[in-house]
Amino acid sequence: MLFNSSQFLIDTLRQRRQKLGYLIDFPAILWSGRESSRNFPANIYPFRASSHFLYFAGFPLKNAAIRLYEGGLELFMDDSPEGSALWHIEIPPRNQIAEMIGADFSYPLSELSVHLEDAATILVQNPITANEQRQLLNCPLRSAKEPEGIDLELTQAIIYLRLTHDGQALQELRQAAEVSIQAHKRGMKATKTAQLEAEIRGAMESVIISHNMTCSYNSIVTIQGEVLHNQHYHNRLQSGDLLLADVGAETVLGWAADITRTWPVSGRFSPTQRDIYQVVLKAHDSCINSIKPGIEYQEIHRIAAIIIAEGLVDLGILKGNPEDLVEQDAHALFFPHGIGHLLGLDVHDMEDLGDLAGYEHGRVRSQRFGWCFLRLNRPLKPRMLVTIEPGFYQVPAILNDPKNREQYQNIVNWERLEQFADVRGIRIEDDVLVTETGTEILTQSLPTSIQDIEDLVKN
Amino acid sequence: MLFNSSQFLIDTLRQRRQKLGYLIDFPAILWSGRESSRNFPANIYPFRASSHFLYFAGFPLKNAAIRLYEGGLELFMDDSPEGSALWHIEIPPRNQIAEMIGADFSYPLSELSVHLEDAATILVQNPITANEQRQLLNCPLRSAKEPEGIDLELTQAIIYLRLTHDGQALQELRQAAEVSIQAHKRGMKATKTAQLEAEIRGAMESVIISHNMTCSYNSIVTIQGEVLHNQHYHNRLQSGDLLLADVGAETVLGWAADITRTWPVSGRFSPTQRDIYQVVLKAHDSCINSIKPGIEYQEIHRIAAIIIAEGLVDLGILKGNPEDLVEQDAHALFFPHGIGHLLGLDVHDMEDLGDLAGYEHGRVRSQRFGWCFLRLNRPLKPRMLVTIEPGFYQVPAILNDPKNREQYQNIVNWERLEQFADVRGIRIEDDVLVTETGTEILTQSLPTSIQDIEDLVKN
Repeated sequence: MLFNSSQFLIDTLRQRRQKLGYLIDFPAILWSGRESSRNFPANIYPFRASSHFLYFAGFPLKNAAIRLYEGGLELFMDDSPEGSALWHIEIPPRNQIAEMIGADFSYPLSELSVHLEDAATILVQNPITANEQRQLLNCPLRSAKEPEGIDLELTQAIIYLRLTHDGQALQELRQAAEVSIQAHKRGMKATKTAQLEAEIRGAMESVIISHNMTCSYNSIVTIQGEVLHNQHYHNRLQSGDLLLADVGAETVLGWAADITRTWPVSGRFSPTQRDIYQVVLKAHDSCINSIKPGIEYQEIHRIAAIIIAEGLVDLGILKGNPEDLVEQDAHALFFPHGIGHLLGLDVHDMEDLGDLAGYEHGRVRSQRFGWCFLRLNRPLKPRMLVTIEPGFYQVPAILNDPKNREQYQNIVNWERLEQFADVRGIRIEDDVLVTETGTEILTQSLPTSIQDIEDLVKN
Repeated sequence: MLFNSSQFLIDTLRQRRQKLGYLIDFPAILWSGRESSRNFPANIYPFRASSHFLYFAGFPLKNAAIRLYEGGLELFMDDSPEGSALWHIEIPPRNQIAEMIGADFSYPLSELSVHLEDAATILVQNPITANEQRQLLNCPLRSAKEPEGIDLELTQAIIYLRLTHDGQALQELRQAAEVSIQAHKRGMKATKTAQLEAEIRGAMESVIISHNMTCSYNSIVTIQGEVLHNQHYHNRLQSGDLLLADVGAETVLGWAADITRTWPVSGRFSPTQRDIYQVVLKAHDSCINSIKPGIEYQEIHRIAAIIIAEGLVDLGILKGNPEDLVEQDAHALFFPHGIGHLLGLDVHDMEDLGDLAGYEHGRVRSQRFGWCFLRLNRPLKPRMLVTIEPGFYQVPAILNDPKNREQYQNIVNWERLEQFADVRGIRIEDDVLVTETGTEILTQSLPTSIQDIEDLVKN
């Protein structure tokens, strides 16, 4: 079957929309979006339905919309046009899909125009569908990041629901994590014979593709780990390099995983690489151990910053008291990004909404170096899923910046730092579920220790 | 290096724009386009520059435009914003890129607004960039398929140039073909242990990814070969199935390959599968052998139709004289699509222009069953690259159509056909360059014979 429904899924979808019904007293219409063309109309990027649509409709239906009101669900989509069976796999007819998702009614898309009254929406990413939304609802919505009126109310209600995960979501998230773990193991194993970054990427993504999943984001597989979102794979692997791989799978229903590991191309970390890796790993473990309901996520970030500062002091790279160093943002010279983010249907969950989901109401991004990239700033609750991903990077644009050189001239031991030139970028990232009592690491079975990683790469 | 330039490339780009300069006497501005968002703004589909831009600018530059006039080239793009080096790999600065592509001048994008006068363009696929094009040029272009005035003249000039390939293009096209061949061999090899279609796909695409290439279209890897553009991979492989794999690579500079092979999951074709495979292979070989400068591509299509009809008569599936059967479109019951298409920067080359490139001026698509899907209808010329891809399919929507049942009731031996139930879809597709004396098959080193295919699958 193209789409596998189940009573569990149908019940879950019903519960989600009933909960939405308690939160808002107006109808919501959510669009799935449409395919985007690559270089000509029939050559399309793989379709990805809007995550808000997926949350309530379950399946990645193309060119569909759902209307949610008082716990009810109406599906709007057209049956496949005649003649499409020659070219495309048969999508079940609308009435059958309606059953598969527990819809109360279903209509052709053209009927949507008479069901629009007083409805709120969230703009999708596809610009053509977004324009349709604007036209049909006769509203000047600028983007999903800046909703107003009932659109804002709807957005806040959906954020509230999606911030914590139900059983069906967790089932999917676990599957995505499991396949991603296998991909990383395959990547480590492929390193011994690989010549290019691209070959490691090929080995890793083949695992994801082979499970009929897709990548939840463009993979990062690079010896230039200091370029945080490096999406190029042309470098040749050299024996002294560290390889940083940030690769995650997404299930057919759209749920994501997000894992980073860093391993030595040669199978053996150099002494300097070991030293820094241990610092990052300690930050990683301490952050995870500190997670529990009620703790502020920015406190987790601070813990990482302090442990990294402490470790760099111990190694003679930074000078001073770790708490003071963090107060001066000195850790951010080497750990400039945030400790992580929400994870769910989106790898940065609900980032289409700007910071509305990531930041507790009333909070805004800090302007401070090292804090400005923190994507999540809320107290943690059970069933939230977050990434924990401390790192250490030598970013030329940061370390060679004359302003930084001056500001931190007596804080960084620049000569000592030069001895760590073979550590360009290290990140260790896991997917961590907040539980009633602490945490469950969905990606735990992928090792993090130096010994285990070396063993996986060598064998 | 992210982009590798060479004197050969620079010279080629210069020749291309000089040729364009002979064909039009007004400036042309071509945009590269921008990234499309997937589920949130920072989660993007891999960028693909417009093919027309790539043809003259060489590299897939994001958010760039070029102005071509009298053989000259001006580049418009912005340098990376400050701070981007933390997140993204450093793109060479504009002036360096200008050198790499042999541009005469280069400007920031904002300068484009004073270089627009009297310029023609071709709309790109990305809707946001396309809107910018419309606004900047103050013109009501509907789509690249329906240009008017100087836009039509520009389109026709570019079609004329892109219809035949120069040495640099052929070098790229050969690389894409070579990697695609390896991908198919890997797919055959992976079949013995694979359980799912997705696993074969993973094995094949890993080869493409490992060569730092991308897929030139969404792969078709399926036991339901009768669904022509089937892009789902969830089916379980059974020992009696045929697997149809239509998978091709695209180089970093955007040049495509397009190969289909069909092989038995078990490693051994059944007698009925052999029978039909031989018919399709004979059509494939005869078409390629018939290609020479001057021949009409639709004549190649007709050759395939006749050989398929002939073969099906010999097998007792069709009744009558092959030429008459083709006259009645009976072949199209089993071979409903065209024999192939242009191949170049796009896998269906220049299909963004509708039929303007594929169809000789003044010709339009036939309405006839079996001919309406022919994508190319021109006399062939040396240095044109086309696919040759005959097939046999049992499409339920065609064969169970009551109209067809009636029309062809005495022409098809429906009982005999039932004996071929294990042949759902077979296609054999190669990339064929027209030469002065005949052809060169760029994908020749991938076998087509039953014996060779069986050997590759079994080993």
